[in-house]
Amino acid sequence: MIKPIYILNGPNLNRLGKREPKFYGSTTLGEIKNSCNELGQSAGISIVFKQTNLEGELVSWVQEASDAASALIINAAAYTHTSVALLDALQMLEIPSIEVHLSNPAAREAFRQVNYVSPAVKSGVFGFGAIGYDMALTSIIKTLKQAN
Amino acid sequence: MIKPIYILNGPNLNRLGKREPKFYGSTTLGEIKNSCNELGQSAGISIVFKQTNLEGELVSWVQEASDAASALIINAAAYTHTSVALLDALQMLEIPSIEVHLSNPAAREAFRQVNYVSPAVKSGVFGFGAIGYDMALTSIIKTLKQAN
Amino acid sequence: MIKPIYILNGPNLNRLGKREPKFYGSTTLGEIKNSCNELGQSAGISIVFKQTNLEGELVSWVQEASDAASALIINAAAYTHTSVALLDALQMLEIPSIEVHLSNPAAREAFRQVNYVSPAVKSGVFGFGAIGYDMALTSIIKTLKQAN
Amino acid sequence: MIKPIYILNGPNLNRLGKREPKFYGSTTLGEIKNSCNELGQSAGISIVFKQTNLEGELVSWVQEASDAASALIINAAAYTHTSVALLDALQMLEIPSIEVHLSNPAAREAFRQVNYVSPAVKSGVFGFGAIGYDMALTSIIKTLKQAN
Amino acid sequence: MIKPIYILNGPNLNRLGKREPKFYGSTTLGEIKNSCNELGQSAGISIVFKQTNLEGELVSWVQEASDAASALIINAAAYTHTSVALLDALQMLEIPSIEVHLSNPAAREAFRQVNYVSPAVKSGVFGFGAIGYDMALTSIIKTLKQAN
Amino acid sequence: MIKPIYILNGPNLNRLGKREPKFYGSTTLGEIKNSCNELGQSAGISIVFKQTNLEGELVSWVQEASDAASALIINAAAYTHTSVALLDALQMLEIPSIEVHLSNPAAREAFRQVNYVSPAVKSGVFGFGAIGYDMALTSIIKTLKQAN
Amino acid sequence: MIKPIYILNGPNLNRLGKREPKFYGSTTLGEIKNSCNELGQSAGISIVFKQTNLEGELVSWVQEASDAASALIINAAAYTHTSVALLDALQMLEIPSIEVHLSNPAAREAFRQVNYVSPAVKSGVFGFGAIGYDMALTSIIKTLKQAN
Amino acid sequence: MIKPIYILNGPNLNRLGKREPKFYGSTTLGEIKNSCNELGQSAGISIVFKQTNLEGELVSWVQEASDAASALIINAAAYTHTSVALLDALQMLEIPSIEVHLSNPAAREAFRQVNYVSPAVKSGVFGFGAIGYDMALTSIIKTLKQAN
Amino acid sequence: MIKPIYILNGPNLNRLGKREPKFYGSTTLGEIKNSCNELGQSAGISIVFKQTNLEGELVSWVQEASDAASALIINAAAYTHTSVALLDALQMLEIPSIEVHLSNPAAREAFRQVNYVSPAVKSGVFGFGAIGYDMALTSIIKTLKQAN
Amino acid sequence: MIKPIYILNGPNLNRLGKREPKFYGSTTLGEIKNSCNELGQSAGISIVFKQTNLEGELVSWVQEASDAASALIINAAAYTHTSVALLDALQMLEIPSIEVHLSNPAAREAFRQVNYVSPAVKSGVFGFGAIGYDMALTSIIKTLKQAN
Amino acid sequence: MIKPIYILNGPNLNRLGKREPKFYGSTTLGEIKNSCNELGQSAGISIVFKQTNLEGELVSWVQEASDAASALIINAAAYTHTSVALLDALQMLEIPSIEVHLSNPAAREAFRQVNYVSPAVKSGVFGFGAIGYDMALTSIIKTLKQAN
Amino acid sequence: MIKPIYILNGPNLNRLGKREPKFYGSTTLGEIKNSCNELGQSAGISIVFKQTNLEGELVSWVQEASDAASALIINAAAYTHTSVALLDALQMLEIPSIEVHLSNPAAREAFRQVNYVSPAVKSGVFGFGAIGYDMALTSIIKTLKQAN
Repeated sequence: MIKPIYILNGPNLNRLGKREPKFYGSTTLGEIKNSCNELGQSAGISIVFKQTNLEGELVSWVQEASDAASALIINAAAYTHTSVALLDALQMLEIPSIEVHLSNPAAREAFRQVNYVSPAVKSGVFGFGAIGYDMALTSIIKTLKQAN
Repeated sequence: MIKPIYILNGPNLNRLGKREPKFYGSTTLGEIKNSCNELGQSAGISIVFKQTNLEGELVSWVQEASDAASALIINAAAYTHTSVALLDALQMLEIPSIEVHLSNPAAREAFRQVNYVSPAVKSGVFGFGAIGYDMALTSIIKTLKQAN
Repeated sequence: MIKPIYILNGPNLNRLGKREPKFYGSTTLGEIKNSCNELGQSAGISIVFKQTNLEGELVSWVQEASDAASALIINAAAYTHTSVALLDALQMLEIPSIEVHLSNPAAREAFRQVNYVSPAVKSGVFGFGAIGYDMALTSIIKTLKQAN
Repeated sequence: MIKPIYILNGPNLNRLGKREPKFYGSTTLGEIKNSCNELGQSAGISIVFKQTNLEGELVSWVQEASDAASALIINAAAYTHTSVALLDALQMLEIPSIEVHLSNPAAREAFRQVNYVSPAVKSGVFGFGAIGYDMALTSIIKTLKQAN
Repeated sequence: MIKPIYILNGPNLNRLGKREPKFYGSTTLGEIKNSCNELGQSAGISIVFKQTNLEGELVSWVQEASDAASALIINAAAYTHTSVALLDALQMLEIPSIEVHLSNPAAREAFRQVNYVSPAVKSGVFGFGAIGYDMALTSIIKTLKQAN
Repeated sequence: MIKPIYILNGPNLNRLGKREPKFYGSTTLGEIKNSCNELGQSAGISIVFKQTNLEGELVSWVQEASDAASALIINAAAYTHTSVALLDALQMLEIPSIEVHLSNPAAREAFRQVNYVSPAVKSGVFGFGAIGYDMALTSIIKTLKQAN
Repeated sequence: MIKPIYILNGPNLNRLGKREPKFYGSTTLGEIKNSCNELGQSAGISIVFKQTNLEGELVSWVQEASDAASALIINAAAYTHTSVALLDALQMLEIPSIEVHLSNPAAREAFRQVNYVSPAVKSGVFGFGAIGYDMALTSIIKTLKQAN
Repeated sequence: MIKPIYILNGPNLNRLGKREPKFYGSTTLGEIKNSCNELGQSAGISIVFKQTNLEGELVSWVQEASDAASALIINAAAYTHTSVALLDALQMLEIPSIEVHLSNPAAREAFRQVNYVSPAVKSGVFGFGAIGYDMALTSIIKTLKQAN
Repeated sequence: MIKPIYILNGPNLNRLGKREPKFYGSTTLGEIKNSCNELGQSAGISIVFKQTNLEGELVSWVQEASDAASALIINAAAYTHTSVALLDALQMLEIPSIEVHLSNPAAREAFRQVNYVSPAVKSGVFGFGAIGYDMALTSIIKTLKQAN
Repeated sequence: MIKPIYILNGPNLNRLGKREPKFYGSTTLGEIKNSCNELGQSAGISIVFKQTNLEGELVSWVQEASDAASALIINAAAYTHTSVALLDALQMLEIPSIEVHLSNPAAREAFRQVNYVSPAVKSGVFGFGAIGYDMALTSIIKTLKQAN
Repeated sequence: MIKPIYILNGPNLNRLGKREPKFYGSTTLGEIKNSCNELGQSAGISIVFKQTNLEGELVSWVQEASDAASALIINAAAYTHTSVALLDALQMLEIPSIEVHLSNPAAREAFRQVNYVSPAVKSGVFGFGAIGYDMALTSIIKTLKQAN
Repeated sequence: MIKPIYILNGPNLNRLGKREPKFYGSTTLGEIKNSCNELGQSAGISIVFKQTNLEGELVSWVQEASDAASALIINAAAYTHTSVALLDALQMLEIPSIEVHLSNPAAREAFRQVNYVSPAVKSGVFGFGAIGYDMALTSIIKTLKQAN
């Protein structure tokens, strides 16, 4: 049996739909979670979908995924740009991982060009809004199915 | 009725009065809290005064203020200089917000010249020590009174 | 009827499959083209798939897409990092556009962190190898179908 | 008897009310002067309120304040960001001094992040518009009263 | 009737013809003034042509032009590279303005690549020597005639 | 007899009138060509007016002008900011040359502050829109007439 | 009686032994704790040995050590490179403190050259692997014994 | 039989002998070609000697050399300093390659210190003028002879 | 007869003796002037000794010296570090010039390492306090005597 | 038998005890040598302890250690921050090596943050004063004993 | 008669053949010396071939060559990247000089991109291993023969 | 009796008079030594005047001066810009010290703007050529006489 897929979300994503809609659209994180769960269900893989504002908790969940998950999707939000601790945790992972961003960070402030997540993951999906989660999840399910 | 004013304090401010007195003076955070409560009371506005060492908890409180407060005063201490997550949370706020610093960061180390709070707040009070909280609070109460 | 989708490829991609396999895998550009054509065919949308080593020709094709295409997928390869001319051409486009990279540029040299394509496109797919084209194309076909 | 308080204003502030209202509001410098004079009068302290476009004249007035004033409030406007001469003059002052800015420079161009006034003053009030003068003056009057 | 055109000149331009001829040629500022006056006269528009070594006086004249002039031509010389005060004054102008430089600053020292005038004017004429004033003035007269 | 004047245009200028009108206006390159031809005709000097998206072709034309032209006007567009090859070609020219830009690059992105054309030409006309070509051409014709 | 020695460990150190063995070796944090406890026991000094992934919790423990400990050993891991809050907490300490790193950060990425712990501690032991804890502890015990 | 040696030349080298003689001397590219052909002939190895102003064509020729040549000598001229596409093409080569520059770039402008060719070739010959081609060719012929 | 020697002093030097004695000592500018006049008198050369806080006035005096003086000694104080206008004026001088600083700027803030005076003068005397004026003046008198 | 341990000391360490005691304490280098010799003697390993002010001699001794020593302890003092030659010599060593600094360089000037020794040694001991030599020597003796 | 050719070698080159063979190969410096002597002998020119680890001795030998040699070949090794003293010595030479490096510094660390030798020599040979000395020597002998 | 004055000279100054006369003039170091000896003799103070090309020897002499000299004059030449070891030695000196440079480094290359001598000496004399030694020596003799 395939272990669950972890989908981890960083700070302020719990406010999605309320927050700066010109960058992130009006979909809420709950709606994204539902969409991911449906995709997982139809593939017979369970989804662990969490959000936290705490950098250290995000680090702990990545560590947890190392043992408990078959793959990781991460939208680290602001911690993408400041967390070396997250980079260290991701570099210990041996399961496939994908970075998702709702908007395209390249079109934003200079300090968002610093990225501690990208060097530690194999691939990324940027700027598709909520659809990006589906794209990443579909791709990772396909990979897992092929490997099992 | 006017919603409470949130006054949020970042890391190490719980040690105020013990910490590097040449920068911050000998007043404790408890004394500042009392002074703010008195000002609030005489204006008939309740004050929510909190401190945390956790970046993510500070972010959560700013989100909470977004719904529950009429205005925000924030002394983010060290997170002022490192927290993009805090910037993101503050940029979602639609209530008036003021930044307070006990000392004048301009007279300190280069890395304290980076400031992720300032670009997201409308105004700031620096270098007045504990008095700065009173100045910010007095100003914000006046604004709120005028608008109601 | 829906206009064709342009898929444009920059310098050295004609050597795909021979070139530094640790970054790009062993799939050839011809195989990617076939896969894209199949996806297009089954959606009833024709695909214009081209490659060039000339910066100026890439610019001309983006201009051409402006009139002739319903959407653009671009893997500008090395010109991603050096071509302001390409940025200018992409900023004139009013059709949806997606950036694709076979590898994750974040894990490579510093000069590949400069990106003149990202700021001008809405979204991007990085590090999925040849699959990235399919993901981008699938997403764009869905968008076009919904809009027509 | 308490010596007067100097309130010095730098270049272009004579055009206040006409100039880029989104940053500075519509109050004129004359109105600010009146408000300051009223505050001074009710405290029994005379106010010397001046404006100049000349860097060297601003320097001379700071020197003059060194002998003639009990405290200094300064809004150096553009010279804040370019005048080492002003820094030198302020560093010679032994009376209390406060920096005022109508807007929050942190939200503006990079060259406005350079500040030669802040390192030489004890405290600052930013982004409160014309009210900032009142806040600084009220605070300084209180300090002077306590010391006399 | 059309208000006068202001032509303002910064530091050391009073020494034109004596100063580093390889950059600026041997024409004097008086000769340039005469040439401008002739052009103005034949167009029926009066010219106000001034020079100063004082940054603050240049700022005051730009402010004055705001009310008294129909257009502004400015050669700020060295203040081009150091004066934020001048930038602030120019950004308040609502009349057309042109920057003139006798030489081409791009061929000179690195510190002359900083330019606080360019971002605040609509257009510029560089490296034509004394002829540049005529070109700017001719262009601005044509614009003013069309608009009246 | 006077050799022709070369007027060379870089990438994306063939799309003029369609492209980001807030920077460049709505005049097309064809209209500019016509205007230049008229000016040339009335002066009895033929005009060679070309555009290309290819950096190398622009280089070749500058080389060609070296033998075939009496003067050069160049709007290198995006290659202004990236082409050392163009700089090398221009530095070999011994005929008078003028740089034209429709908009004022100083008001745009940081990477447009890098300029490889300016150091190799004697003069420049920026931010006059299509009129800039006329100004440059008028000036160069006058110079050529005087020299012949 | 001598107060306990605090030994604090930052993010991801709970995964020691699993994580990138080429940098950190295969010893686990539990084994290090045991070794430290033995050293403490034989010296008659109790050891408080803790690990956290939360920056704020690390800050709180440093504050706690300020009152409760006779000395501090800290391996802040990734927070070494990003936490100004930790620097502030350490600068308040008046007890001896030593920084430990398992590997030598000088041989790693550029962002690991930034260090907010070093300026606030008196001494450091780098690159000895798990032995480094013993070296630091032995040294600090000797110092404490001499002082008591 | 030994495959031909490719000798590729970048932009403006077709003007050699006319261009800035203080850097490059008065030998023409045709004369260099003849000298190389003679060296090749006497060694029984054919020489493919080409020049282009087009970055993309240079890239294509390097790709072509990958299959058709036994070794590569490249003087990329200005593209040395700007072409990531060229770097990518050279990194795919598995045959020996040498970089030649007529002058010593170290004695020229700062932007010529950036070099995208050097990291991808094994060796280089700088500042010997036209002789440098002979030195590189002689060396490479000797290597090829030894290996065959 | 030998023309006078100009000794020009920049901003805040009028406060000498009161200002930051650890850098500048307790001698006043009047005392320095007297000392210089005595040296001049005994050499039969008149001294023009002036001070101003205005950058533009300093520029004008340098221009004046160009015609009226046989040599120039300048202590530009803070304008040393910010005034391109002063650099331009000094570069027009054809008489000998010496830079004097009371303290050694190398031991002070980073922004005092920028120096627009040094590149335009032949020699300098730093860190001798008031004696530095005498040293510079003695040296220049000797030079003038030898040349006359 | 175990080869000797080399302990090499760089410039100015011969003055230890006289030099800036706030950074280095009052122990002399002779006393450190004695302490090291005692440790060596009791372990039955001879110590070669030397000091030089010459960068090249330090390089030669490191080379010598390569053949003659079983391990190296180095306090390169100022050459730590400037000597690439030392880095090259250390990178050739195949015996264990430890860097010692009496003070903690992190608390000193920016140019002392550059370190050419650290990347070439496995471990380091900073800021323990003279004790640091003992700690390094004790650790290296233990390692050598275990390996023999 | 032709004066000898000096071939000077910097720090650590005495260890050639033992040191990091992936960069420098296994040839020893003695073998290179022999090869150079043979080339010299057959040309009837004596060779002075020396190596030192001391920067100052290298400087002295370059000075010596100024009088005693007809030409200079220098491989300054690590001092290439740090020695301004060497640059000064080389800039005084009036005889032809060539820089040799065994490996290609462009493929190594960032601090090896700084080069104080290149700007002072006319030409260079990089990355040919020991053969590079022969190439440089052959070329310089040819030049000397032609000139005599 | 007053101890001797040390006058120390760095690399390449032994070649003075031969070396780049446009920067340093044609006086030799021997002539400067004679002039200094005469000044010393007439003051009854002996002069120790030395030159070396070795950084470490210069360091040793500064140490020696610490015990044996009453004052130090140093022209460190190129080591001014690279020697932290020299800075460390100078910072240990407790006798008066003056820096001399024959030319004005401010008018030369960027790497000569780095200065490790200035921060450790009290005063400096730049750009007076050989006369600068006399000026420094005269000044220091006067100081010593006054103190004895």
